Amino acid sequence: MPCCWPTASGWRRRRWPPGGGRRRTPERRPGSEASPSLVNSRHQKAWGRLRRARGSLLSGQPLSKAPGSVWGPGADAGPAATPQTPLSGAHPVIEAASLDSIELLAPLTADQRASLAKQCSWRHFHPQEQVIDRASDSRDVCFIVEGRVRVVNYSLSGREVTFDDVEAGGYLGELSAIDGEARSASIVALSEVMVAFMSPRLFQQVVTQNPTIAWGVMTRLASIVRSATGRIMDLSTLGANNRVHAELLRLAKPNLKGDNTAAISPIPIHSDIAARVSTTRETVARVLGDLSRDKLVIRQDNSLLVRDFARLEEMVEEVRGD
Amino acid sequence: MPCCWPTASGWRRRRWPPGGGRRRTPERRPGSEASPSLVNSRHQKAWGRLRRARGSLLSGQPLSKAPGSVWGPGADAGPAATPQTPLSGAHPVIEAASLDSIELLAPLTADQRASLAKQCSWRHFHPQEQVIDRASDSRDVCFIVEGRVRVVNYSLSGREVTFDDVEAGGYLGELSAIDGEARSASIVALSEVMVAFMSPRLFQQVVTQNPTIAWGVMTRLASIVRSATGRIMDLSTLGANNRVHAELLRLAKPNLKGDNTAAISPIPIHSDIAARVSTTRETVARVLGDLSRDKLVIRQDNSLLVRDFARLEEMVEEVRGD
Repeated sequence: MPCCWPTASGWRRRRWPPGGGRRRTPERRPGSEASPSLVNSRHQKAWGRLRRARGSLLSGQPLSKAPGSVWGPGADAGPAATPQTPLSGAHPVIEAASLDSIELLAPLTADQRASLAKQCSWRHFHPQEQVIDRASDSRDVCFIVEGRVRVVNYSLSGREVTFDDVEAGGYLGELSAIDGEARSASIVALSEVMVAFMSPRLFQQVVTQNPTIAWGVMTRLASIVRSATGRIMDLSTLGANNRVHAELLRLAKPNLKGDNTAAISPIPIHSDIAARVSTTRETVARVLGDLSRDKLVIRQDNSLLVRDFARLEEMVEEVRGD
Repeated sequence: MPCCWPTASGWRRRRWPPGGGRRRTPERRPGSEASPSLVNSRHQKAWGRLRRARGSLLSGQPLSKAPGSVWGPGADAGPAATPQTPLSGAHPVIEAASLDSIELLAPLTADQRASLAKQCSWRHFHPQEQVIDRASDSRDVCFIVEGRVRVVNYSLSGREVTFDDVEAGGYLGELSAIDGEARSASIVALSEVMVAFMSPRLFQQVVTQNPTIAWGVMTRLASIVRSATGRIMDLSTLGANNRVHAELLRLAKPNLKGDNTAAISPIPIHSDIAARVSTTRETVARVLGDLSRDKLVIRQDNSLLVRDFARLEEMVEEVRGD
């Protein structure tokens, strides 16, 4: 079976995953006789070849010069002031911007953040491009300075499982920077995205020299654990219908108004909800259809309006036992 | 419906959860006409009354005296040297023991650990007793000095979902100490257990004054996130059969021998595996029966012997795509 992706011309704008998620499961590829595991193995090899040929998307190389202090007198001058990972290929290094919008780094002074910004590698990504490849050797932390990204994994059959969306001001990829292990998921750009990549060594210096930042990292990790625990409970004990209700509730909650309505805008894509609650698009469509017939949820302009938030909340609480 | 538990005499040795897990789902209780949510609500109220009457199992009260340094000259003398949470009730405070076996605190000196030990509340629990109640207000961190505990949650119908077992030398309960939020799960003793409860304020002081310990907390949280991510992927993409295989592989891995066999000892209980991979005991029994017929897994004395570890690993890798 010839490897039909990615082509050289499709590289920059290709949609991730290479197999196209649910739309390109091995079974649906005409003429394919290979088993799913073989196909997957071949995909990985093809990606590996491309990566080696073009240079790694991200670099896990340690700093060539490790200053004693992250923002000592020499930290923003000399070799450390230039990006640590000057890579060729699809995502050239761009000029350093500001890390002032990164919430985690708020306890630092503006000068300290400016010094750190110069020690990061900066890159720009287009929508659907991969910011971190799960299979890469990179251990960098990604600070999202502009745009929005999604943490996502794919099963062998191409099923998409999404974990979290991170907006500008947030960060991700800290797990590998902390424990030095492989990536646990991939990160995909949802919009035009500007990212500052910080080496694991620099991240460790920043964290260990700033107790407030260290506590901030712990607080975020705690929040991720809580979210994962809730999801494991939902997956273990709720039916797919109830999980869709719970996801709608989660999406609507930030926009709850005094009149007990909440608008979800833009209208969520069925496949996004399906990937978030581990079910099929067809189930999501059916559940939304049922809610619509009950007039609990209606389409209004470019949003999905939950007309009785308390009722939806009650439906979820009834099965979750919150 | 009369509240049939816990009786005063059954308090110390009662089995958690109050509803008895799967064995006491509301549907099976003869004469019960209440809906599951009503029953649950009543259970909670009954527990609440008992807790108020007997004093909280754990206390979330802050330190009455907060020294500037955790182990300053006055830290192991005066009011801070006595347990901070002198509670009456089922689990009286016991004499402070040593925290030397706690891995996280290894970077401290023996004197510092001794000082901390005096500032903790020490308690002993019998097997099946609850160490932390998910519904409690406690935000303490629990250091497991002796024995073994399990992190566990129950669905409304009484379905048990287990998350992690922690042995002596480990700790848990740090989420609430870090973010101040409610408990995400309960903790149950699996054996005779001795626990040192550290107040969230003291924990924060220890962590923020010791970068190595802070990094240790982050590393453990990262490991929990990885484990949860893997479980979400398994729940989202694997069938129950494959999840049982994966759990057997996880249990067998630490005991892999050079001859490609691995003994799991003692023989795992079906309901424990079921709670770990979110399926039924019947499914676990069926899958183990199939593996036994294939001679892949056999019962040997007091252990379950995986006769071909590589084959089991291959079976799991085939579906996971590792």
